[in-house]
Amino acid sequence: MNNSRLEAFSDGVIAIIITIMVLELKVPHGETLDALVPLIPVLLSYVLSFTYVGIYWNNHHHMLHACEQVTGPILWANLHLLFWLSLFPFTTAWVGENHRAAAPAALYGVVLLMAAIAYWLLQNRIIASQGADSLLKKAVGRDWKGRLSPLLYVVGIIAAFRSPESAQAVYLLVALLWFIPDRRIEGVLVHK
Amino acid sequence: MNNSRLEAFSDGVIAIIITIMVLELKVPHGETLDALVPLIPVLLSYVLSFTYVGIYWNNHHHMLHACEQVTGPILWANLHLLFWLSLFPFTTAWVGENHRAAAPAALYGVVLLMAAIAYWLLQNRIIASQGADSLLKKAVGRDWKGRLSPLLYVVGIIAAFRSPESAQAVYLLVALLWFIPDRRIEGVLVHK
Amino acid sequence: MNNSRLEAFSDGVIAIIITIMVLELKVPHGETLDALVPLIPVLLSYVLSFTYVGIYWNNHHHMLHACEQVTGPILWANLHLLFWLSLFPFTTAWVGENHRAAAPAALYGVVLLMAAIAYWLLQNRIIASQGADSLLKKAVGRDWKGRLSPLLYVVGIIAAFRSPESAQAVYLLVALLWFIPDRRIEGVLVHK
Amino acid sequence: MNNSRLEAFSDGVIAIIITIMVLELKVPHGETLDALVPLIPVLLSYVLSFTYVGIYWNNHHHMLHACEQVTGPILWANLHLLFWLSLFPFTTAWVGENHRAAAPAALYGVVLLMAAIAYWLLQNRIIASQGADSLLKKAVGRDWKGRLSPLLYVVGIIAAFRSPESAQAVYLLVALLWFIPDRRIEGVLVHK
Repeated sequence: MNNSRLEAFSDGVIAIIITIMVLELKVPHGETLDALVPLIPVLLSYVLSFTYVGIYWNNHHHMLHACEQVTGPILWANLHLLFWLSLFPFTTAWVGENHRAAAPAALYGVVLLMAAIAYWLLQNRIIASQGADSLLKKAVGRDWKGRLSPLLYVVGIIAAFRSPESAQAVYLLVALLWFIPDRRIEGVLVHK
Repeated sequence: MNNSRLEAFSDGVIAIIITIMVLELKVPHGETLDALVPLIPVLLSYVLSFTYVGIYWNNHHHMLHACEQVTGPILWANLHLLFWLSLFPFTTAWVGENHRAAAPAALYGVVLLMAAIAYWLLQNRIIASQGADSLLKKAVGRDWKGRLSPLLYVVGIIAAFRSPESAQAVYLLVALLWFIPDRRIEGVLVHK
Repeated sequence: MNNSRLEAFSDGVIAIIITIMVLELKVPHGETLDALVPLIPVLLSYVLSFTYVGIYWNNHHHMLHACEQVTGPILWANLHLLFWLSLFPFTTAWVGENHRAAAPAALYGVVLLMAAIAYWLLQNRIIASQGADSLLKKAVGRDWKGRLSPLLYVVGIIAAFRSPESAQAVYLLVALLWFIPDRRIEGVLVHK
Repeated sequence: MNNSRLEAFSDGVIAIIITIMVLELKVPHGETLDALVPLIPVLLSYVLSFTYVGIYWNNHHHMLHACEQVTGPILWANLHLLFWLSLFPFTTAWVGENHRAAAPAALYGVVLLMAAIAYWLLQNRIIASQGADSLLKKAVGRDWKGRLSPLLYVVGIIAAFRSPESAQAVYLLVALLWFIPDRRIEGVLVHK
């Protein structure tokens, strides 16, 4: 079994996740520009989550590219990742509507953390299936971003209960860290 | 006609089904962690249905892989399966909102049963189209999971009227039975 | 430009149309089987529309298969068809909620009629692009189904104002006419 | 990395955008034809946005076809374009519900303008990645449509505050300008 249908299915799910998040931008009742003001935090949380989903799509794309053989455990590790990504619209909407509250900011971080763990599990499954000469293992290298991000999410979750804004700043920082696509994998693939 | 567009269309429908189920996780009005408590049964029924749709996607994928030629009856048997899968978001939401009621638990089982029958019909259509040396027939073998599941769904449906929780336990048990991807088909395909 | 991306995009749109129609099956407030009774007409109109979208997907699939070269007019004729199909969820929901009213039954027929005209326009565009030896023209032949259906839709639209039920019976009849995939095209393609 | 998964993902997102816009056509409470009257402006704004998304899909398709190599910046420029397109359902719904108000008509233009800028940035990224002999640069040529459209959007945005109808007329005019698929690119590709 090759990776193309897994890619296609993941693409479909991610495309829907990224698009239904916008449904939370409810049409305002008023017809003036003022009516848009309460939507600003909703829009900002949408932008952040859109960026995160974009980063996941991007890196997921590179990772599957380095995976020649799809096994059962890889399939389920991938569905597990999609499960956590599918909760992004929920946490995004909750943060958007309560942007100064602790619990939504913390939960947003918990789902980010779980998605990061799910991504790491999927990566490990692929590396394990490739054996000692794993192409992906070489590509990922020391994986400092993958190690640092969960720690920062935990910092954000704890910070949320003191200051939701600082938690959001941490999540934004992690997004910026990942913004650049994973050139390590690209690099190894080119020299393949 | 080959199986690639059928796969692509089915993938699209399944990806949307799995994603719109999450829309039932309505954003709570409160902004504290307490506000999440009533969502726990909704989340649990989402997790169960996500797993079921994942299982169907997975086995459907393997099955179509063993189908070289798509005929009219196969197309319609596939749409018939997608129809029953498309009712999962409805029954999931009803169970999620009324997790201690008999009727939602029973209806959830009825839709699972109909999807299982639709899957079995599709499998039979493919086997019939392949003639005596059917690759899929060999792969499926005695198909004990496919025979046992409908019986267990019927047990769950009847149990629902005595104890909804026990019905849900039965549905969970069937999901666990299927969790492992259908290695039988994989096995035959490898030796093809 | 080949037909694969046009197929993929159309598949995506049709997959979403067929799936969002189920969102009209709103979760009932009650938790007993009685609560499902008012949903029966909604479910029946969903089944009819699901069948129609399935028929369109099926025939569209065969038609694009017979189209080697995608031109600008074909692209727009295809989008025009998708536009009318995208209105199915709306008319399905209106009929489902008002199954004994004249206007919803008539509008349902109008959208079916417009989709049939759009399909016919797309078919003509493809035939025109293929020139005198058009494979699709040969495949379609006298196209009695394509000629009869619009007439029956008009009969249904007029009948709706006397008896909505009879209009729905006409729409069901046309669906049954088309249920069998377009073997004519399959036939010609096989002998190609 | 080739352009096929980028195409597939973009197709998915665009297919969902074009389809969820129709969700704004809420089922009327009445059951007579009169009940449809308030929906006419909603339908008209849907038709306009459907046309715009169709134009974007169409031209995006041709542009990616001329892009042999997908780099990181191209990926992000593409996601940036999808972000602005994802706001179309929101502005379409706001205009549809307040078709005589200034702010919705202006915001509709702002999102059109941002999408046009995002498209132009993506085009520039692709041209830059292709170097001096850029196929796309040759294809785009002087790009008078791409230069004129943003100016017209600005005119529309300003006009909205005087007369929303005239703004909508300007947006319609730009759509008509683009209606014809980008034959320039087609032309160069044919002679490739």
